[in-house]
Amino acid sequence: MTSPIRLRGVFSPVLTPFAADLSPDAGRLVRHCRWLLTQDVGLAVFGTNSEANSMSVAEKMGLLDALIEAGVPGSRMMPGTGACALTDTVELTRHAVRHGAAGVLMLPPFYYKGVSDDGLFASYSEVIQRVADERLRIYLYHIPQVSQVPISLALIERLLKAYPQAIAGIKDSSGNWDNTKAMLEQFQPQGFDVFAGSESFLLATLRAGGAGCITATGNVNPGPIAQLFRSWQQGDADAQQQALDAIRNAFQKFPMIPAMKAALAHFSGDEGFAAVRPPLVTLAGQQRAELLATLQALGFSMPGM
Amino acid sequence: MTSPIRLRGVFSPVLTPFAADLSPDAGRLVRHCRWLLTQDVGLAVFGTNSEANSMSVAEKMGLLDALIEAGVPGSRMMPGTGACALTDTVELTRHAVRHGAAGVLMLPPFYYKGVSDDGLFASYSEVIQRVADERLRIYLYHIPQVSQVPISLALIERLLKAYPQAIAGIKDSSGNWDNTKAMLEQFQPQGFDVFAGSESFLLATLRAGGAGCITATGNVNPGPIAQLFRSWQQGDADAQQQALDAIRNAFQKFPMIPAMKAALAHFSGDEGFAAVRPPLVTLAGQQRAELLATLQALGFSMPGM
Repeated sequence: MTSPIRLRGVFSPVLTPFAADLSPDAGRLVRHCRWLLTQDVGLAVFGTNSEANSMSVAEKMGLLDALIEAGVPGSRMMPGTGACALTDTVELTRHAVRHGAAGVLMLPPFYYKGVSDDGLFASYSEVIQRVADERLRIYLYHIPQVSQVPISLALIERLLKAYPQAIAGIKDSSGNWDNTKAMLEQFQPQGFDVFAGSESFLLATLRAGGAGCITATGNVNPGPIAQLFRSWQQGDADAQQQALDAIRNAFQKFPMIPAMKAALAHFSGDEGFAAVRPPLVTLAGQQRAELLATLQALGFSMPGM
Repeated sequence: MTSPIRLRGVFSPVLTPFAADLSPDAGRLVRHCRWLLTQDVGLAVFGTNSEANSMSVAEKMGLLDALIEAGVPGSRMMPGTGACALTDTVELTRHAVRHGAAGVLMLPPFYYKGVSDDGLFASYSEVIQRVADERLRIYLYHIPQVSQVPISLALIERLLKAYPQAIAGIKDSSGNWDNTKAMLEQFQPQGFDVFAGSESFLLATLRAGGAGCITATGNVNPGPIAQLFRSWQQGDADAQQQALDAIRNAFQKFPMIPAMKAALAHFSGDEGFAAVRPPLVTLAGQQRAELLATLQALGFSMPGM
């Protein structure tokens, strides 16, 4: 067996286009993924910002098939595979690993709240044992404000001890730098790769030895974010970070997923990118106009899209 | 078409037994459902306390097939069918309706938080339109402390106006009597059946004109709860309510699902009932001993189990 790829850099939870009947739109997804790759951004398909949890496992497996068939390389993919149901997580994870995904981003089961670390450890253990594939590399997904099920430092320690090969890293979307810092200090030196949950913490994460970031805004501003990853040791890094933050702030004034989809529709000239699946709703016309005006004032563009 | 059954009374989110390999145990589920029916308790299979969201749609459809094949009547069933993914909800709801389930208990999509009533209305609308079956009767499921996605009074009003036939009622598991009372006052007179989320509010709900309750503890204390439903206008109703509350409190000192499964295992003499799926964990030995001692002091039993 060849040594697995160690993922680093900037990844995007790839926005999932939907057709008029709300079915997943594989064609537009392939197009968007190819563009992201040209911008040097990896593909965390099926993340929170992908509306992944608004799709069935079968729909996600179908999209993954379509991406692979279109030649999108598994080596650049970190599909989200964590679901509420153990069996769903196992099925999608197995499918991703067999398709050669370099890693998977795994939410804990998120319906039951206040669950114990024992229960979460058992969940991840079951998945690892059932997938039973040496190629499996799990990036834990800590996004307590959405999942409401946090991944504690104690749980990471326990998982790393039990499964040092399968447990590859984490996406920390808590927005709590103290937490990211603690992970970077305690676990990054063991080869557990810490990704910031947004580019807001990209520079800080890289300066502390982290692996990069997995960020929603990577969908719309991929080039400049990837540029900071490549040049973070240069003198203009702080200025680059500030420019990234300004773009991010423009999107964050609105519901992020519909806003990013509206931008994608606008800059690609393809309205088909704007659709969302319920319970989300598309950006209202007035909001879209405000967003585009702000972006224009910032000199924002999506070159090559 | 015959007029649909209007569900009333006491329902239980039926505990789902799991085999040693954590697969759903249809045999023990059938046994438990039959016992509940002898106690005059209806079957809200696939509720929160059923660990429904720890199972895939395929697993739930398989269990429903097994129940129907075993002769468990659809007229006594209110399966939980709401999932994060629109397509999952549609698939399971369609299956339940085709199997003759008298109603379905439907969580809103619960991964994305802070979603709008517009988005939730669109979610329920899509399900109703896709299932496209006149027999569909939806009981909305308001359990904000777990789902983190509340169902507002304004949303109910809007859904009732658009789908007066399909929107049949609600389970209010908020534990907030003011909310239940508002639903009872505003919507019960229109034939929208309000079920309390636990037997703690059974008497109050019936006195205010409600339809009954759907309660976890219905799994272990079904007979006395159903007895209060039948006799709530009698002089001893308050005393009955107090006795129910004492039993419920005994279980609530522990994680409810493992505690109820431990009791089921103990009183049935079948340890196979005790297993839970991760992220839940079985009740520790010491906790189980405490629970059983408390239940014994209360004179608790599970007659006929």
